[in-house]
Amino acid sequence: MSQRIKIKALLQSGETGIDVTVKGWVRAFRQNRFIALNDGSTNATLQIVVDFENTDPTLLKSITVGAAISVTGKLAASLGQGQTVEVIASTIEVLGDCDPDKYPLQLKNRPSLEYLREIAHLRFRTNTFGAIFRVRNTLSFAIHKFFNEKGFVYLHTPVITASDAEGAGEAFHVTNFDLANVPRTESGEVDYSKDFFGRSTNLTVSGQLEGELGAMALSDIYTFGPTFRAENSNTTRHLAEFWMIEPEMAFYELKDNADLAEELLKYVISYALEQNQEDLQFLNQRLLDEEKQKPQNERSELALLDKLQFCLANDFERLTYTEAIEILRESTPNKKKKFQFPVEGWGTDLQSEHERYLVEKHFKKPVILTDYPKEIKSFYMRQNDDGKTVAAMDILFPGIGEIVGGSQREERLDKLETRMDELGIPKDELWWYLDTRRFGSCPHAGFGLGFERLVLFVTGMGNIRDVIPFPRFPKNAEF
Amino acid sequence: MSQRIKIKALLQSGETGIDVTVKGWVRAFRQNRFIALNDGSTNATLQIVVDFENTDPTLLKSITVGAAISVTGKLAASLGQGQTVEVIASTIEVLGDCDPDKYPLQLKNRPSLEYLREIAHLRFRTNTFGAIFRVRNTLSFAIHKFFNEKGFVYLHTPVITASDAEGAGEAFHVTNFDLANVPRTESGEVDYSKDFFGRSTNLTVSGQLEGELGAMALSDIYTFGPTFRAENSNTTRHLAEFWMIEPEMAFYELKDNADLAEELLKYVISYALEQNQEDLQFLNQRLLDEEKQKPQNERSELALLDKLQFCLANDFERLTYTEAIEILRESTPNKKKKFQFPVEGWGTDLQSEHERYLVEKHFKKPVILTDYPKEIKSFYMRQNDDGKTVAAMDILFPGIGEIVGGSQREERLDKLETRMDELGIPKDELWWYLDTRRFGSCPHAGFGLGFERLVLFVTGMGNIRDVIPFPRFPKNAEF
Repeated sequence: MSQRIKIKALLQSGETGIDVTVKGWVRAFRQNRFIALNDGSTNATLQIVVDFENTDPTLLKSITVGAAISVTGKLAASLGQGQTVEVIASTIEVLGDCDPDKYPLQLKNRPSLEYLREIAHLRFRTNTFGAIFRVRNTLSFAIHKFFNEKGFVYLHTPVITASDAEGAGEAFHVTNFDLANVPRTESGEVDYSKDFFGRSTNLTVSGQLEGELGAMALSDIYTFGPTFRAENSNTTRHLAEFWMIEPEMAFYELKDNADLAEELLKYVISYALEQNQEDLQFLNQRLLDEEKQKPQNERSELALLDKLQFCLANDFERLTYTEAIEILRESTPNKKKKFQFPVEGWGTDLQSEHERYLVEKHFKKPVILTDYPKEIKSFYMRQNDDGKTVAAMDILFPGIGEIVGGSQREERLDKLETRMDELGIPKDELWWYLDTRRFGSCPHAGFGLGFERLVLFVTGMGNIRDVIPFPRFPKNAEF
Repeated sequence: MSQRIKIKALLQSGETGIDVTVKGWVRAFRQNRFIALNDGSTNATLQIVVDFENTDPTLLKSITVGAAISVTGKLAASLGQGQTVEVIASTIEVLGDCDPDKYPLQLKNRPSLEYLREIAHLRFRTNTFGAIFRVRNTLSFAIHKFFNEKGFVYLHTPVITASDAEGAGEAFHVTNFDLANVPRTESGEVDYSKDFFGRSTNLTVSGQLEGELGAMALSDIYTFGPTFRAENSNTTRHLAEFWMIEPEMAFYELKDNADLAEELLKYVISYALEQNQEDLQFLNQRLLDEEKQKPQNERSELALLDKLQFCLANDFERLTYTEAIEILRESTPNKKKKFQFPVEGWGTDLQSEHERYLVEKHFKKPVILTDYPKEIKSFYMRQNDDGKTVAAMDILFPGIGEIVGGSQREERLDKLETRMDELGIPKDELWWYLDTRRFGSCPHAGFGLGFERLVLFVTGMGNIRDVIPFPRFPKNAEF
């Protein structure tokens, strides 16, 4: 390995007087003398002091914004503001130049987030996206660390599935057919027996059902993988391809499930605050600057860091759907007919405006809503004794809405089969799922955490397309 | 959370005299008195002592193999062999029964691996698969831990991609079309502009190209995600859906790349040996038992644990493709015409029999082969000065073959473009990849590690379908 030291480690070491080699990309070059060097390990740049009088003018000219360089020199205490050390360069090599007239990030004005989405291959080179993707990395690691410490088994559930139990046509097809020449049966149907898997297959919308199979033997498992929706949603909250964490726990009831989800969310937020202080401070300031453009009444009540700390310091509010409907029905915006969808009776699904009211206006903190009407929830959720509700839970976050959706699962074979029949879900396709209720069934529960929504919350970004490296959405699969 | 304690923690605690609650599945019930209880946290079972004289006979009858039970009782020192503690049950509740006449794992004979593949939803409940999936979990975590400690950023590269640069028709199509009614343009072509993404899209075969984009800003990144091949391979080494780890490092040359790969492999194997002693001892014994059925000369030279230790204790052998060809040409099996594909000239690809000879017979340890002929490697590999070879590397493991494939990447725009032209790879589709060579290019390298092949190696299993929860292969997408 070359003796290169990364800038984050160098700045942390506090050493001076030693020779070092650093490599990275030029962020700025002032007065032919001071290079601000970044290598992605931190947003902080390292100042390189160039002896311009004794440096080849051709070399000096090729030190432009975006160029990749290698520098060897002596680490010295710095007198400059905001930096403790700098490198007095003895040799500088330009590894790859960068034409200032063509480089898209050479723009004098700060490029917009919209423009950066079009050059997602280069946006990692900005402070905003460097910070976002380092925070995303930390959150991923924190999730694995959390479950590992609790003895959960990470299970890779399949991405290609034949079951579309939850589907409703939202799943992408996966096929090996030549689409110009799809094989047909004699009666003219698509002949899936000729497809790669010998049947119709989709991209998974959830690993839950397979995850349950693991939990019914290993006790506690989690998935962390990509999931897909072929929904034509062009919103700031939806992607066609996104990552989801889905733990499933044998012998858990609904309360245990909610406790685990709350503990997980607090753990990973706390871990990010600890590991990515600088990045989160940067994103905090970015959001403050962005909100300065907005009228006072549209600004967040709390700055990003305060919001994260607030989230750690307070118990999430827990209440039932039925209690929430009461609060909403009696709320000022409902009475003043400010809701687009007025809250009248029990049984309808909550709209985003209702969730926001509960979280952002009424309780002013994360909310766990439980025990929804069975008609608006999935077939596998455990039926409560009231005959009307199921042991579901959604966790709602300020600014994000639903970040977690889960439930205790229906472990009683007869009740599960009856519900599947009512909803017309083919039992023969899910024979393996039902088998777990035939052989040693037990109370169990689980939830799904939308990873990009978590990253949105922690980074304070406003558009989900900005927190995944290469977003997939209708009419867009670039890169 | 309920006060349940998991069996692994209980066995480790060494405490006695306290009241505990344990939950799990019955593995055996002897003499109406001794329950062997397993909860998936370890293969070890906990002995539950039942006071059968004072227990309801109906309850006793429902304690069958596979049933889920909850037990409360006192933890006592055990006189039985192979166990330090047992639970003297005060209450037993059957949470889910398990009809012995129908339960597939009730079989008196040990079920075959082939049969267990057909009931993959239940095979987690066997000792073999419990051990495999706990080891798989540990290896996953070790990979994240390794890269995290080195400051790599975990990057989720897209699963759905429009580029099929490496493709050669091995990629699955992803579409939202009704396959019975694929839209056509006026000239009769498939009208991809009407598809979800407005273009033809596939499942990724590698995250490398996108990974490089991250490395050219963040320095060191890695992916760990699913990848796909629509190859009609019915072997014990191939899956249609598998997980791959792909690190990409700016400022790395080929030797740095090989050093990192060797360090990673040793780190994760060592971590599994440390964390999963019991599971690996079990798998070690399983393999010894399995090999007893084979004739002496087909058995492994080393037992599983010895093989893993050997791998840690020795430097991987490094040599060039050219040196390897010389060794193979002069080898006894080549001279005696025992190879199915005789090794004659320089330039042909190595077959599995050649790789096995090098690793298992000649060097008897892992081998890193470098500097392959450019004709048999991908367009993006860095061209060596000899004009004939590229800075590629493959790591070959005993019993597995290629476990890692990587290279230094071609960072020089002109050389890369020339090679793409030679191979007919459309440059306009990969404009974003080429951009990284236009703006601050630098030497960089990376590799892909096939995760299931690693799990195969560490668990000593013989078929890749047994080391992923729900394998996907031609004509099979069950569960």
